Amino acid sequence: MIGTGNIFADVMPNPAMEAFATLLSQPGLRIERIVSAGQATPAGVWLDQEQGEWVLLLEGAAALEVEGETGPRRLARGDYIWLPPHCRHRVAWTEAGRATVWLAVHVDKPA
Amino acid sequence: MIGTGNIFADVMPNPAMEAFATLLSQPGLRIERIVSAGQATPAGVWLDQEQGEWVLLLEGAAALEVEGETGPRRLARGDYIWLPPHCRHRVAWTEAGRATVWLAVHVDKPA
Repeated sequence: MIGTGNIFADVMPNPAMEAFATLLSQPGLRIERIVSAGQATPAGVWLDQEQGEWVLLLEGAAALEVEGETGPRRLARGDYIWLPPHCRHRVAWTEAGRATVWLAVHVDKPA
Repeated sequence: MIGTGNIFADVMPNPAMEAFATLLSQPGLRIERIVSAGQATPAGVWLDQEQGEWVLLLEGAAALEVEGETGPRRLARGDYIWLPPHCRHRVAWTEAGRATVWLAVHVDKPA
């Protein structure tokens, strides 16, 4: 089963809500498109995930905080980062007024 | 271990050779950047892989043939395609004179 599409199709910045779309789901792996428009992780909240996550910023701009680091990492077009399982992180900000498009590859820990 | 970079860093079209770089290697999964500059799969050759491959064209242009289809699929910026294990395919062409940048996610079949 061949699945195709364009990752920039129907990208609409929505300040009310981030948009998540699964592009591929396979055992142990899920590839997702995320479109942000000013959203951030709520203050004081850290994301702590069972799965590893490889993220690539395709359009827009954002900053990511990783627990224990001295400051947020600013991400621009083309920047990628691997967040191992349970690497606590938060999105400090995404650019308001335009779409920030992320590719996220969620990877299960090997059994 | 956090791994970071920019997928468009040091992209140089090289008509003599495609360039492959592994961005992430995890059990069952490998994420790779491929930079083409006019290369194609040799005439009459099909690629037949044990692993599934999800490819996303990030820059440039290409055409992909999938065995059994009536013609090549033209790929532009943002186009992605999932090629399941043993889905025989070939790169018909990539644009000459500039870089075509691919993201490839290679996925092992579950054990």
